[in-house]
Amino acid sequence: MMRDLRWSQAEKTIAKKAFNQALEKELAVIIRKVKEMAQRIEEPADLWKIEDYLSNSRREIDGKFDYRYSVLPQVFGILIRNGLLQEEDLQGLGEDKLKIIRGIATL
Amino acid sequence: MMRDLRWSQAEKTIAKKAFNQALEKELAVIIRKVKEMAQRIEEPADLWKIEDYLSNSRREIDGKFDYRYSVLPQVFGILIRNGLLQEEDLQGLGEDKLKIIRGIATL
Repeated sequence: MMRDLRWSQAEKTIAKKAFNQALEKELAVIIRKVKEMAQRIEEPADLWKIEDYLSNSRREIDGKFDYRYSVLPQVFGILIRNGLLQEEDLQGLGEDKLKIIRGIATL
Repeated sequence: MMRDLRWSQAEKTIAKKAFNQALEKELAVIIRKVKEMAQRIEEPADLWKIEDYLSNSRREIDGKFDYRYSVLPQVFGILIRNGLLQEEDLQGLGEDKLKIIRGIATL
């Protein structure tokens, strides 16, 4: 069971770094997009499109970036599937975790 | 009573025009501000500041711009007080309405 996995200190360090890296990547995409949308505002409706985009993004981030060890392999699997992380970024994690991550990444 | 006032067709036309004009003015301020905020995004927190600003603005607009004849004199009074409208913009409304509007504008 994913929730029974034990994480060594070294694994936790690797996991935290990869997690933050993916989060920054995701945020950078959103920042770029909002700057673009703002530049192109022509009418009031464009304002509310930005608001919707931001609140959807915030919701998505909250759902996707869940740093509880009990769900982290699944989180990483999805991040790889979404192109926000590569398996190389997780080098050093135990094979018990990597197996689950790969399984979810290739679903 | 404000809700018992009768609005002639001519008054409705004047009111609608003034109302839309004030709304456009308000929206133009928000658009300018969002463009500015977006240009200056440096970190993720700046994104959520834009989201908050937009949702507050939307709420404020919904509260302030209420085009029901039963509350319109009050709405106009507040818009004048907020600098989004001048009494001249309402020229042609009956003195019954203007008296209420002035009363609220100078509260």
